[in-house]
Amino acid sequence: MKVVNKMGGDRTEESLKKLVYNLYTAIESGDIPEMRLSSRTKDNIVFDQSKSVWKYGSSSVVRSVKTTDGAQFMAKSLYTIEFIIDMIKNSKSSTLREMYYISEGWKDYKFHSQDESNLLAEDLEVITSLMREDFRLRPEENGASVIGNLTIEEKSRKGEFKRINCRDDVGDAGYSIPYNVEIEKVKLISHDVDFILAIETGGMFDRLVENGFDENFRSLLVHLKGQPARSTRRLLKRLNTELGIPIYVFTDGDPWSFRIFGSIAYGAIKTAHISEWLAVPSSEFIGITASDILNYDLP
Amino acid sequence: MKVVNKMGGDRTEESLKKLVYNLYTAIESGDIPEMRLSSRTKDNIVFDQSKSVWKYGSSSVVRSVKTTDGAQFMAKSLYTIEFIIDMIKNSKSSTLREMYYISEGWKDYKFHSQDESNLLAEDLEVITSLMREDFRLRPEENGASVIGNLTIEEKSRKGEFKRINCRDDVGDAGYSIPYNVEIEKVKLISHDVDFILAIETGGMFDRLVENGFDENFRSLLVHLKGQPARSTRRLLKRLNTELGIPIYVFTDGDPWSFRIFGSIAYGAIKTAHISEWLAVPSSEFIGITASDILNYDLP
Repeated sequence: MKVVNKMGGDRTEESLKKLVYNLYTAIESGDIPEMRLSSRTKDNIVFDQSKSVWKYGSSSVVRSVKTTDGAQFMAKSLYTIEFIIDMIKNSKSSTLREMYYISEGWKDYKFHSQDESNLLAEDLEVITSLMREDFRLRPEENGASVIGNLTIEEKSRKGEFKRINCRDDVGDAGYSIPYNVEIEKVKLISHDVDFILAIETGGMFDRLVENGFDENFRSLLVHLKGQPARSTRRLLKRLNTELGIPIYVFTDGDPWSFRIFGSIAYGAIKTAHISEWLAVPSSEFIGITASDILNYDLP
Repeated sequence: MKVVNKMGGDRTEESLKKLVYNLYTAIESGDIPEMRLSSRTKDNIVFDQSKSVWKYGSSSVVRSVKTTDGAQFMAKSLYTIEFIIDMIKNSKSSTLREMYYISEGWKDYKFHSQDESNLLAEDLEVITSLMREDFRLRPEENGASVIGNLTIEEKSRKGEFKRINCRDDVGDAGYSIPYNVEIEKVKLISHDVDFILAIETGGMFDRLVENGFDENFRSLLVHLKGQPARSTRRLLKRLNTELGIPIYVFTDGDPWSFRIFGSIAYGAIKTAHISEWLAVPSSEFIGITASDILNYDLP
């Protein structure tokens, strides 16, 4: 897996244009244009021992214009690439949902559901080894939050970096994690915490904020908002690798909790192509388990 | 309708205790204890001409211990009141979801679903003319956001007021609206905007933020996040009445949009007892309509 290029407009444009160029030269030389990408299914998930994260295996899928489906996919990909390059040129971004709606204007090549356009965006990530953030495509909501003595600088829409302390400069709702937390957008300046507590539910997050847990226990509280968004996992990863802060994951007692922990520690199927950018194998689970219910006589 | 008391711990405790006292004296004097409250159904919604908002009509429901259902309701109400008074004493708050879970310990009087406990919290609001914020019960998520040249002071968990400019002191995700936006928690200090644009979707909100709409058009952008939470509507109301800022509601083109507009302008059924605290009858709808699709040849 190549190194993922992060929020570099020029390199993204170049990469996407190269993809188009390859299709074009295939046609010119009389070959059938095709795109090859890793198969993004559970069967093709393998555990990367060296990095301790889940990655895609060697199975791949070929999309070729030989079939109607393949030709349709290719046409939609080209429309999508044009859309992304337009956004880069105009310094704009869009939500995944907007792209789905905008495809209404692509006539025969419009997406039939948002799932389809979301998957295509992920396919393009896998093919180009870029990230959705590079494509300037954001989720509809980001919205998870952070509270504690961490100072960051966030690049504002005017291009200036704004310094924010995630304890002193924010309200009790904390600092909202933006959809893009790459270094071009968010710089990690300094901190004074011993660990990160990543919390599944808003109720527990707010309760710990209210009790001043972050101050009493020198910690950074991160609200996961259920299954955490990419930007939340990416921020956790950066805090762990760049600042060396250990991560503890505090969840409810249901099976979903283990899935949430797994996605933070080892990666998720849909994002296995960028596991090493998102997953923190050293994270520790400190959520409630079924045995706790018996051990502590919980109601 | 009496004036709603806002976030006054003492008055809330007093009010709830008076309710319990009335039940107690009924028992003492040999009467059957009962609670009377407005019927909270669509049939009992009337338009208040003077205030231009929807309110409850004159139908009322009596919950008396004569029936098993009534007795159960009364017992659950008493447990809930005890729970709320405990929170006031300990300066704590809980989510509605937490209260539902905590009721597991109330044995025969536990809630069977979160809907049931949410409804009971609303019933108590109607009976006491207090607000859920007074009961220190919060929704699981608040999370809508605001961006623009508005300066507020938010009381932190330590009791200090923290000054925040919703344009200069926040990231591009904006200022997160806390669950309680009453004057005890959020003071409106100053502003330099001509109008508020209340926006249904996150995508459109982020797009306008990215384009600097709030600066170019001297406006405050408020993300409604679909059907707006109480705290979002309450903040809109305060901005409108206290600072005199007009509100325009910008929505998608589907029927839900009119419902969203209606809840901002005239109130919603579930919160009709506090319509005058939440609804802004002077709001104007500037969302997309079905005729726009024809007029502007939208795809």
